[in-house]
Amino acid sequence: MTPHFADSLMQGIITRGSRLCVGLDPQTGHLPAGVDVETFCRGLLDAVRPYCACVKPNAAFFEALGPRGLASLWRVCEHAQELGLPVILDAKRGDIGSTAAAYAQAYLAPGTPFDALTVNPYLGSDGVAPFIEVAAGAGKGLFVLVKTSNPSSGELQDLALADGSSVYRQVGALVGRWGEPHIGASGYSCVGAVTGATYPAQLAELRAMLPATPFLVPGYGAQGAGAADVAPAFDASGLGAIVNSSRGIIYAYEQPACAGLDFAEAAAAAASRATHEINLALGRAADGG
Amino acid sequence: MTPHFADSLMQGIITRGSRLCVGLDPQTGHLPAGVDVETFCRGLLDAVRPYCACVKPNAAFFEALGPRGLASLWRVCEHAQELGLPVILDAKRGDIGSTAAAYAQAYLAPGTPFDALTVNPYLGSDGVAPFIEVAAGAGKGLFVLVKTSNPSSGELQDLALADGSSVYRQVGALVGRWGEPHIGASGYSCVGAVTGATYPAQLAELRAMLPATPFLVPGYGAQGAGAADVAPAFDASGLGAIVNSSRGIIYAYEQPACAGLDFAEAAAAAASRATHEINLALGRAADGG
Repeated sequence: MTPHFADSLMQGIITRGSRLCVGLDPQTGHLPAGVDVETFCRGLLDAVRPYCACVKPNAAFFEALGPRGLASLWRVCEHAQELGLPVILDAKRGDIGSTAAAYAQAYLAPGTPFDALTVNPYLGSDGVAPFIEVAAGAGKGLFVLVKTSNPSSGELQDLALADGSSVYRQVGALVGRWGEPHIGASGYSCVGAVTGATYPAQLAELRAMLPATPFLVPGYGAQGAGAADVAPAFDASGLGAIVNSSRGIIYAYEQPACAGLDFAEAAAAAASRATHEINLALGRAADGG
Repeated sequence: MTPHFADSLMQGIITRGSRLCVGLDPQTGHLPAGVDVETFCRGLLDAVRPYCACVKPNAAFFEALGPRGLASLWRVCEHAQELGLPVILDAKRGDIGSTAAAYAQAYLAPGTPFDALTVNPYLGSDGVAPFIEVAAGAGKGLFVLVKTSNPSSGELQDLALADGSSVYRQVGALVGRWGEPHIGASGYSCVGAVTGATYPAQLAELRAMLPATPFLVPGYGAQGAGAADVAPAFDASGLGAIVNSSRGIIYAYEQPACAGLDFAEAAAAAASRATHEINLALGRAADGG
């Protein structure tokens, strides 16, 4: 039987005792001296493996290196999978149906080293359907942008609608509907949502609206949200979401608190701390899960 | 002096006598027997060069081939530039600021074989600003999705707002504002909009709203729109827009009307016909421009 993405993710949270997703945003010009992007990412993966639920490489920073960057991205993701870490590729793809099908083949087909993909909803259902079809068939998942973590996310996403709703609520409702036929034994669908921790009120509202939608929650750490801000993303069992931190972990070695640690040691320490802070905010520190 | 993207594009329309953008969507399993993606695209570029204003490779179909597909994309775009054809990379990227900056470096920095990029506005101003900054500095351009050509584009884009406007109008207004500081001698900005020919009423409305915004108009041909539908995209001088056709041109060799022609000959014939149909609909057939 094909495994179900959300079931595997929730089981991983319990087994690993972590709700942390480590984001790999390897910015050129911002790497430790003498370390290339691929060595950096592989070192990070080896280091954070015990302290996270999954990893989220961001395609942009690999694409910025040109075609050879894409080859690095694939090898880094293969390495993550060898380590048993689920890989969410953050590429925010979205297009008309025939093109979305090509993106789905690129990043969600069986044999590709990715377990889930972030997707942009601006084109509506027919731009998202091919991702869902390929993901569901391959036991993989997607996370659709609903309420993003950046300062200007409200310009479009918060627009008030004539019917009293808002754009992000409407997108949230679509995501819930798209995911309904694909709910696994865990009670969660393979169609998830991206909902930023920097907007905790909207996060709580969306959790109430969408009880079967797994949330990928960016904005924790470098973007300013803390552990208390992410708590509303979780259900009463402390499941249903993963919290991403990128810069706060992979560039931890630049912080004074990490003096004397190399980039991998600093990342492991930062990931461990983030995992425990999040667990603590959920009252889950004692059981480790 | 750095050339201005919109000035070059409008000059190209006049010089070439074509408002056609040929879309390169090389679907695997849909290529002529014995022809690989790169050979197919290079052959198409050589063939359509006299009959179009620019070309629009779609990143998805190259990404579907994995990392080697990206290398093909770059070589194909380098070939287009060698032929003097402006290259609009259709990749619909969009992300938070720091990530958008990486995508902008990937596809709009000087030295990359792309002249413009399609961009998704769902994240708002801070997700688009880095694209504008890099494009303006490099004499390149972008086309922001406003009203897309696909059947379900209305699900989000047509939502009625509390203030009487709609999502696509609001995005259109943002695109106009973003482009204002970057208007060239032609009267057009390097910040353009994607507005589908399949929704001609909205196209006309957006043209009236956005007199300085160049339009990339998909939906002509295989998606169902005809030459009359694209006419509202143009200004009184027959400038301000390019009309994309992908499948109707690159797969013309599969049509009964093209029996006996190879894929390149069929594409040249289809591009020539589309160029003339569009010019005719604008009353510009006689002057060729």
